[in-house]
Amino acid sequence: MNQAGPAGTAGPPRGGPVIALDAMGGDHGPAETVAGAVAAVREHGLRVVLVGRLAELTGLLAEHGAAGEVPVVHAEDTLAMNEGALASWRRPRSSVAVACKLIRQGDASALVSAGSTGGVVATSTVRLRTQPGVLRAALAVVLPTRPRPTVLLDAGANADAKPEMLVQFAHLGAAYAHTAHGVAEPRVGMLTIGAEPGKGNRLARKSSELLAATASEPPRLDYRGHIEGHDLLAGEVDVVVTDGFTGNVALKTVEGTVRFAFDAVHDALTSTRRARAGALLQRKALRGLRESLDSESTGGAVLLGLNGTVVIAHGASRARGIERACMLAADLAASRIVDQIRRRVTPPARGTSWLHRLGHPDDH
Amino acid sequence: MNQAGPAGTAGPPRGGPVIALDAMGGDHGPAETVAGAVAAVREHGLRVVLVGRLAELTGLLAEHGAAGEVPVVHAEDTLAMNEGALASWRRPRSSVAVACKLIRQGDASALVSAGSTGGVVATSTVRLRTQPGVLRAALAVVLPTRPRPTVLLDAGANADAKPEMLVQFAHLGAAYAHTAHGVAEPRVGMLTIGAEPGKGNRLARKSSELLAATASEPPRLDYRGHIEGHDLLAGEVDVVVTDGFTGNVALKTVEGTVRFAFDAVHDALTSTRRARAGALLQRKALRGLRESLDSESTGGAVLLGLNGTVVIAHGASRARGIERACMLAADLAASRIVDQIRRRVTPPARGTSWLHRLGHPDDH
Repeated sequence: MNQAGPAGTAGPPRGGPVIALDAMGGDHGPAETVAGAVAAVREHGLRVVLVGRLAELTGLLAEHGAAGEVPVVHAEDTLAMNEGALASWRRPRSSVAVACKLIRQGDASALVSAGSTGGVVATSTVRLRTQPGVLRAALAVVLPTRPRPTVLLDAGANADAKPEMLVQFAHLGAAYAHTAHGVAEPRVGMLTIGAEPGKGNRLARKSSELLAATASEPPRLDYRGHIEGHDLLAGEVDVVVTDGFTGNVALKTVEGTVRFAFDAVHDALTSTRRARAGALLQRKALRGLRESLDSESTGGAVLLGLNGTVVIAHGASRARGIERACMLAADLAASRIVDQIRRRVTPPARGTSWLHRLGHPDDH
Repeated sequence: MNQAGPAGTAGPPRGGPVIALDAMGGDHGPAETVAGAVAAVREHGLRVVLVGRLAELTGLLAEHGAAGEVPVVHAEDTLAMNEGALASWRRPRSSVAVACKLIRQGDASALVSAGSTGGVVATSTVRLRTQPGVLRAALAVVLPTRPRPTVLLDAGANADAKPEMLVQFAHLGAAYAHTAHGVAEPRVGMLTIGAEPGKGNRLARKSSELLAATASEPPRLDYRGHIEGHDLLAGEVDVVVTDGFTGNVALKTVEGTVRFAFDAVHDALTSTRRARAGALLQRKALRGLRESLDSESTGGAVLLGLNGTVVIAHGASRARGIERACMLAADLAASRIVDQIRRRVTPPARGTSWLHRLGHPDDH
């Protein structure tokens, strides 16, 4: 492996966690990831290591006049955007796998990738492993609710989950809301159908019962009960817990519906000459709104529960999306979210907590 | 039971199926349901029987000058809006139960209710029973996609489903798209995560495999594979199949996100004086759009697979929503959707179809 000083021989201006950026991931490839890395380093003083094909990345850095500014670690292989979970076994030298190696070696604290979600989740889960006591890592996304954002998890890492996993997801999400959004005591809800206890499918019912029964034990949780699809964007809780299948369907339904509603508004606003005249006056206001709802602005999804911070940027990310994902990763790593999760899933009192007693399921 | 001629002694102007309207259901009660029934009879020539408290309904009819125009069948009891599945056992004399009795007796073909979805589903499932060969009734809703609407089912009748049920839901949905939207060969998709075969949770994977394996056998089905949340509103298929938990979460997420997006657009359009001036010019265009996306305009959800047509209007329905639900029920009953479903689930060829062989599960 051709290495050019992972922890910054030509170090960035200030300290802080080192971000290993998968430079090869994403629909737009290295040109955008390198531009994003340069912006993250120059404008925000982050410490970023680019991981990918050395020659290609060095050339792109030179175009930015940043040849010595951002270190590069060579990885000869890449994950294709359509590669899924099996990718992790097939490609030990992929840029994602090499970035994970940097974290395991202590040369980086966080991974950022705009690669395929399935490939990054599988690769980083296999190579970074779940934290002690964590049954499964969960993918967390941030919904643009007001006044505070809402964390939705699992957004797709575990299509078939068990109640014990969902209970842990509640704690992973609470740690995230605490760390990333500064919420002292995050309110947690369970995504299900029907607001009353006893409603929902088997998984949601059992998970909700277990959460309600254990919320007052340490690690304490402010469990608020059921949340319906109607209220996913109502900002009534700080964390919404669900399995990876339901969460992924819900997330993508939100994204598809926002697009649908905007297209419908656009059509309505340009349907008559009178309406078109109005639209001109509003172009700026609508553009601002579209940007604020744009998923790129949230920085990406976060895989919680591994021995290292993992941020998965949208596949369609441009330089600005990569830059924001790096900022999110640096924030999470700097505020030691991994330690916060460890405190929640491995409480101090002699391992007597029910969460500790749950242990690992057979298939893990 | 005090009965005033179910099949119309003071008969409406023309023939067609008789609609038994639960006059007591809905958030706004009999004032709106009676007004809706009067409009359905007077403006569309439908045959409607009001079911509920005789004295109250007769009084309301008199206010419309329609005392002899719409027959009333007395039911002394009502389902409360917050009553769920157990309601059907507790209230044999509810207006929904009595309306089902009219269908069983052959005095009506369809039930319309704006009562609680859980209560109406449970009551009508117990009292009308599933059609021969149908494993479970499914709740179908219509999404406002273009150029054609999309049928989503199950939208909440079966929170825990089996693959064989989802395969049947595909056929129920195809019968609905054919009957209500005139689609000759409805395209059917499975709501899941990830577009490739093999993606999804266990239920979606097995259901999709079963659908793909049987789509070419009679009753033939144009199965198009996986649909993600992104594409729920893209109009790429005519029928989207899923279990009742996922379907209900997806439907309510669509509704919540449309509301969220409109509120955001409204805020953006009135954020500055310049934008406000534009909004004035567009008020009409936006109002039209909001109406077209308004769930009332679709007439309500339809419970498919029972021995009778069941339309569940939104609880918040006003007279116009009730009127449209009656029109939908009349259309479905007139085009004999029950027979169409029978032909799909009980094919002619000596019961050799796999659908026939599936039989009933133990818990049914």
